[in-house]
Parts: sequence; structure tokens; C-alpha cells
Amino acid sequence: MKRYESLAEELAESVGTGQLRPGDRLPSVREASRSRGISPSTVFEAYYLLEARGLIEARPRSGYFVREAGSATPEPLPSAPEAHERQVEVSELVFQVLAAARNRSLTPLGSAFPSPTLFPLPKLGLAVGRAARQMDPWRTVEDLSPGSAELRRQLALRYLSSGCRVDADEIVLTNGAMEALNLCLEVVTRPGDLVAIESPTFYGALQALERRGLKAVEVATHARTGLDVDALAGVLERHPVKACWLMPNFQNPLGSLMPDEAKARLVALLEKHQVPLIEDDVYGELYFSRRPRPAKAWDKTGLVLHCSSFSKTLAPGYRLGWAAAGRFAADVGRRKLISSLATPAPIQEGLSDYLQRGGYDRHLRQLRQTLAQHRQRVLRSIAKHFPSDTRVTQPEGGYFVWVELPGRIDALELHRLALSHDISIAPGHLFSADHRFSHHLRVNFGHPDHPDVETSLKTLGQIAKALL
Amino acid sequence: MKRYESLAEELAESVGTGQLRPGDRLPSVREASRSRGISPSTVFEAYYLLEARGLIEARPRSGYFVREAGSATPEPLPSAPEAHERQVEVSELVFQVLAAARNRSLTPLGSAFPSPTLFPLPKLGLAVGRAARQMDPWRTVEDLSPGSAELRRQLALRYLSSGCRVDADEIVLTNGAMEALNLCLEVVTRPGDLVAIESPTFYGALQALERRGLKAVEVATHARTGLDVDALAGVLERHPVKACWLMPNFQNPLGSLMPDEAKARLVALLEKHQVPLIEDDVYGELYFSRRPRPAKAWDKTGLVLHCSSFSKTLAPGYRLGWAAAGRFAADVGRRKLISSLATPAPIQEGLSDYLQRGGYDRHLRQLRQTLAQHRQRVLRSIAKHFPSDTRVTQPEGGYFVWVELPGRIDALELHRLALSHDISIAPGHLFSADHRFSHHLRVNFGHPDHPDVETSLKTLGQIAKALL
Repeated sequence: MKRYESLAEELAESVGTGQLRPGDRLPSVREASRSRGISPSTVFEAYYLLEARGLIEARPRSGYFVREAGSATPEPLPSAPEAHERQVEVSELVFQVLAAARNRSLTPLGSAFPSPTLFPLPKLGLAVGRAARQMDPWRTVEDLSPGSAELRRQLALRYLSSGCRVDADEIVLTNGAMEALNLCLEVVTRPGDLVAIESPTFYGALQALERRGLKAVEVATHARTGLDVDALAGVLERHPVKACWLMPNFQNPLGSLMPDEAKARLVALLEKHQVPLIEDDVYGELYFSRRPRPAKAWDKTGLVLHCSSFSKTLAPGYRLGWAAAGRFAADVGRRKLISSLATPAPIQEGLSDYLQRGGYDRHLRQLRQTLAQHRQRVLRSIAKHFPSDTRVTQPEGGYFVWVELPGRIDALELHRLALSHDISIAPGHLFSADHRFSHHLRVNFGHPDHPDVETSLKTLGQIAKALL
Repeated sequence: MKRYESLAEELAESVGTGQLRPGDRLPSVREASRSRGISPSTVFEAYYLLEARGLIEARPRSGYFVREAGSATPEPLPSAPEAHERQVEVSELVFQVLAAARNRSLTPLGSAFPSPTLFPLPKLGLAVGRAARQMDPWRTVEDLSPGSAELRRQLALRYLSSGCRVDADEIVLTNGAMEALNLCLEVVTRPGDLVAIESPTFYGALQALERRGLKAVEVATHARTGLDVDALAGVLERHPVKACWLMPNFQNPLGSLMPDEAKARLVALLEKHQVPLIEDDVYGELYFSRRPRPAKAWDKTGLVLHCSSFSKTLAPGYRLGWAAAGRFAADVGRRKLISSLATPAPIQEGLSDYLQRGGYDRHLRQLRQTLAQHRQRVLRSIAKHFPSDTRVTQPEGGYFVWVELPGRIDALELHRLALSHDISIAPGHLFSADHRFSHHLRVNFGHPDHPDVETSLKTLGQIAKALL
């Protein structure tokens, strides 16, 4: 454990035991630094981590304070799915919810996307225009799958800076992460195979499984630390699992983050069973405290197929994703060639140009700060307006919170009533093959520029209370 | 039959009977117009058609002449595949040939693409840059599958002008035609199903079938008129065909064009059997005489899934394709959403902007003329340098000729020897599930700007003769 982490732990314990109470002011960074003989930046990192965990909050010009009890809503209970092999069939509901998310007149609490206004679209437009005008015409042939060598080189550099060695040669550029994930799934499974997924899981994973004719077995998770590795170990002992599809970093919908130690155990476990891991890491860059390493960082044998994209971090609508597919890279590249040949050359060249010029990291810092701040507002509103007994996650990254309502509330009914108030939500039913999360919902806090988020949360809370 | 068509037929017959002989000058347009009492434009159209068929040629400042016997190489024999149901397995060879096509140092006779320098890439770059800079950020959400309403409207208008009624609502934008074709195949088949294809067929279709775990039955074709509808009727009687994947217009690799009457019979036949048609029409706009209608034009019940793209006509590397998927449109749209969510918004908006400003048709006229002229040069070279007994198609559109060499020549050996002379070719083996076209090759005439096409054809002819 690093020094800032032990300081954070110590303070968290003081909050837990009541030694530090809601509203208490923490020592200033300078005081803490002096009294403990550690550098100010270490104190900063510890406070930043506690803030990301929702335990303390910064008040402008006043310092750091332990957060009010009202906002310390308890987290949802761990999931405990039945370890059944199940044919996946995704309901019509997913398409309805996705369609509602496109409707500008709704408050997009159910949206899968952050607000497109958070991204440097005009700058990207400049870069793509410049690249497309000046593009060597032969790029249209040379940038076929696996894609631009220069862009793959830059991605490999970014992996390196996130503590993960990935060779440019194992990267295949794709039409967004969704295509990368689908292609990886195709490569490591055959129709009828069994795939282990988290409970709850991203509905896009369920759709991909259904499309491929696969069975799913759901694995227990914890709302803060994600996948229960021991539960997975049990599943691997008892079921002929052919692949795992997991989101170790800021899981959708939980927002959970697997600790490093759990990721290391996960990769070792999968190596023992020789089960490939499809790692969906599209939110990894949207951390509020520090960059979490992907499970891929522990992969020594090329068994992890790490998929990500720029869609949620830089360039929504540009559809540039990739797979760092380890030992499966050549197969994934061929599948890409067969299924859609290439990712558009102007997009590849334009994003490569943008990355070379710099500015991505500056944009990311701004974006993370915006999301972290808005998370606090949304959590406060939920704590204030939702029924007591509501539980909610405190994610340290991404832009989703997972809300567990009192058991008598049917999230589908809530969804219908919310729509009639021009509010979209993502009911929990979407996030498992057996529709077990019937009183849960995923709330998107990625729309800080939307004027109606707080009033909509208030309305939603009122509807939920009326349903009780 | 229109007036210009009957005039063309009459002249073609005169050539056939020897009344008009190679080298003979045809009446000037003015003479023919006066003597027959028809408009000069009708005569022009007839001559254009005959030129496209390779029967006559224009000589600058001299008029039209019946082509030399040397260039009137006979066409390849009709194919006669065994009507077996066959599991599709595509060889490694396809990937090797595709990889060779990316190597700039080779003469690209085996390439699947026309030269990227034939396209208005700088102008498209301007359009995409402008659209991307000015794009309403919400387009990144609204342009999700099925894609930009405006671009789909413009595609519907282009269908109308090619004699085909397609509603904008049945169009799904995709990542190139390849994705459209794969998605359509997914929607109308299940793994293990049987699909009828042409013999020879585009290797991309074979790869897509293999990817989906489908069986293929190959149907006889004629080198000029494409699919033998009677042969297909027999196949449909005897085999449980679940879908057809065909290229009625300028088939790859034959360059064949199904006559209107055959297309009408084809659609009626498929309606009778309720078998969907996946129509790959990516070369339809590259006609040398007149726009052929797609089979979709005869579709009354939404059974034809018409797929095309801008990749070969306007915007190589932009990966913008679509499916006009009739009664299957909603399903195709959902598959697109699941598999890759959307086509990049800047590409959708940029091409929409380009089309609205006009200039596409002007570019197409130029492109068709360039390809038609280069076809003549390539056919002349083949006639001059290839072994006697060589047969070759005279396609009226696209940029491929299909060459049938004397039976003792192994096209794979030719391929290997050609590579050692820095020439890529596409051996016939690629174009069927049973590798029957062992002494055939597809030659790309879409690289008029390449300096070595004629010397490479000469070299190829010498290698072929040495193999005899």
C-alpha cells in the first residue's frame, strides 16, 4: 500500500468509527503535511481518493470536510446470482430504452452516453478535416485492418503510461469498442458455448451473447469492488466456461472497481483454467483519483483481449475503438477484415493527428473533474429525494451510479411513469439474463450541462415514493 | 427494346455475320442519324453500348471502327458447378492475396480496389472537415443506427433515379457494404443453413458464409449474362435454400450483367419460394453504357436486401455503405446497433454534405469513362500477350475482367511466379468453395494511372506461355 493510500485508509477508519463526524473539517493539506512529515502532494492524493470515494468533499476556499450523513447513502448489497447456465434472450426493452436516450426532449438519466457537449468536437473536426484533405490516397488501402500503424503505435504508448505493456502489433482498430468486443467474442467462442459474465452486466454484453448464440453464467459482484473472484473460481470449477466478458474498471452499471490484487488473482485464475478474458475497459480513463490498471496489465500469456475506444473519453460518434487481443490478435484482425474490412481512414488519420498534437490529457483532466463534481450533485439529490432505504454506489470513475430501491418498487413501472414526465431511466431488468434486478436502476451522471437533472431526480424520487 | 438498343443489335448482328469486318469504319453519327431518321443521340447511345460490349472502338478524330479480331478474345465458358451442399472453408490464400494488394510496390492486377487516385479525396476531405467542425454535438447520438435521416433520404432519391423505389425508412447505414452484407446474412440465416451463390463468386461472400457457419450451393453462370436463372430454379426445387447472395450487376469476378428480363424472373422465382435475396450491388454505378437496374427494382414484397456503398464509386476508405433491407430493415438496424452501434457521424454528415452540394454525378461520368477506356487497353494487352486459347470477359461495367487460361495452366503457380515479378493477381481458386477455377484469374483494370500495367500484362502472358 502506498503512503497516500494508508493515509486515506486511516482517515476513512476515523470516519467509520465516528471519530471524524459529518461536517468536520479535515486538517489543511499544509497542516497534515507538516504534522505527519509527508509531502503535500501525498496528502492531496489521499484527500482526492477520499473525495472520489464520496467520504469527504472540498468546499471552495474552506478546505475538506467529512460529508453530510444525508449523502452517505449505503451501497447496494452484493449480488448473488444463481449459477445457472442460461440461454441469453434480451428483451425488447433495451431497444426502447436506447431509443428514448436519443430523444433530446427527455432528461437523459437512462442514457448510455455522456453529454456530447463535454468533448472537443470542433478541434477533432479540424484534425479530421486536415487529415482527410491531406491524406495520401493509398492510406485508404494501407489502413485496412488491423489499421493505421501510427495510431496503433500511439495506443501502445498510452498503454505503457497506464502501466500495461501492449505491442502495437496486437492492436486491431475497430468501429468502436462494440465491434471490438463482438469480434473478440467471435474469436474465442463457438455458438452454444458458455460465457461467464458479471451480475449485473452491461446489456450490450447480453446482446452480443445472444447474437452469437451463447449461454451465460452470471457471477456475483460487490457494488464497490466488482467481480467476486472466489465466486468465479467456483463457477470455473463447476461449469465448462469458454470465455469471460468482464469490466474490471468502473463496471457498467455498477461503477465498481476491482482492486489490483483482485485483478491479479483473476488473471492467474483464468490462466490456470486457460479461459480467455474479454476485458471491456471503455471507462478506465474516466477515473476520479488515479488511473486503474486494466487486468491486461497482469496478463503474461496473451489470454486477455483488452477492448476500449475513444467514444466515451474523447470522440463520441467517431466510432474509433480497438482490441489489444494478445495471442488472438491475428484472428481478430481477420474477423475485422471479413466483417467490415476497415475503420474509416479519415477517422484513423484524424485521431492520430489529434493525439500527436497533444491536448488529449488536458481534456481528460477537465472531463474527469467535471464528472466527479456532477457525481456529487447527483448523489446528493438521490440522497435527498429518493425513498429512505435506497442504496446507491459511490463510483470512483465513469458516469453511472447504480441505485437499489426498496424491494416493493418495480423499476419497469418507474421507467414507464418517468417517461410520462419526460425522464429516461435504465431499469435494472436490462442488466441480467434473468431480469433479477427488478428494483434497481442505472442513473447517468454524465450530463452536467442539462438543466433538468436535479428537478428530474426530485420527480423520480417522488414517483418512487408514490409507488411504495 | 428501345430504339438505340435495336440499332445496336442490328449492327452487332452485322459484325457477327461478317457483313461488317474488323477494321471497318461505321457510318458517322450524322450519317446514321440522317439515313435512318433517328436522332443523333440515339445513334450515340447505340455506339456507346457497342463500345461497352467491346465490339467497336472510337478512334480520335476518325470515328467508330469494328474492333480488330485480335482483341475479340472469346468469352469464358459458362460455369457448370455440381449442385452440392458444401461447408464453406476459405483458404489462407485470400488473406495472402489481400495483403499483396496493399503493397504499393506490386502492380495491383490482383487488387480488389480501383486506384484511390481516381476519387475526389481532397474535396471529400473538405466536406468531412466542414461537417465535423460544425456538427451539432447531438448528431453523435441521433446518427446511431439506422443513421442520418438526411443521408438516407438522399440515398432514397438516388434509388429513384436508378428506377427503383426504396423508402428512406428501409435503409440502414453501415460500415461499408461488407458490414451491410454480413448483417443481412445474419438476419436471414441461422448457422447451418444453405445459401445459393454464383459460381464463380466473390470470395468475401464465401468468407461471410464461413463466418456464419453456413453451407453453400453454387449456381451456374454465363460470363456475360451472369446467373443462370433456370439453374437456380432447379437448385431451389431440390435443396432447402434459405437465402441467395448474388451480384446481378457487374458481378465480381465475372463482370457479368443480368438482363432485365432475367432479373424479373429471378425475383419472381424467389418470391415463389419465399427465399430472400441479398443483392450485392457495389459496382452498379460503374456502368459503361447505361445504369442497370438492381433486382431490387422488381421486388414488390420486401424480399430483396439491396446492399451497396460509396467505397468503389466515390469515397474509398470512408467505409460508408448501406442496406435497403425491405421487410428485414428493422432487424438489420438492430443487428447494426448490437454489432457496431453506428457509422461514424462525421463520415455520415460529410458525405451527406458532399452529395447535397452536387458533383457526384460529374465525378461518376468521368470515372466510368476512365475505366471503360482502360478496360480496352487491358483487353488489348491480354489479347496480344496471353496464350492463344485464352478466354476473357468483356464487362460493361466495374473494373474486373475474368480470364480463362488454357486448362493446363495452374493459376496458383502463375500467382506465385507473378509475385516474384512484383505483380499481384487474383487466382481463380479464390472464387469458389470447391476451388474449381484452377486456370482462371481475375484482372483488375481499375489502375489506369499505374505505369506498369501493360508491361506487367506482357510479363504475365510470358509466364503463362512458359507454363504451357
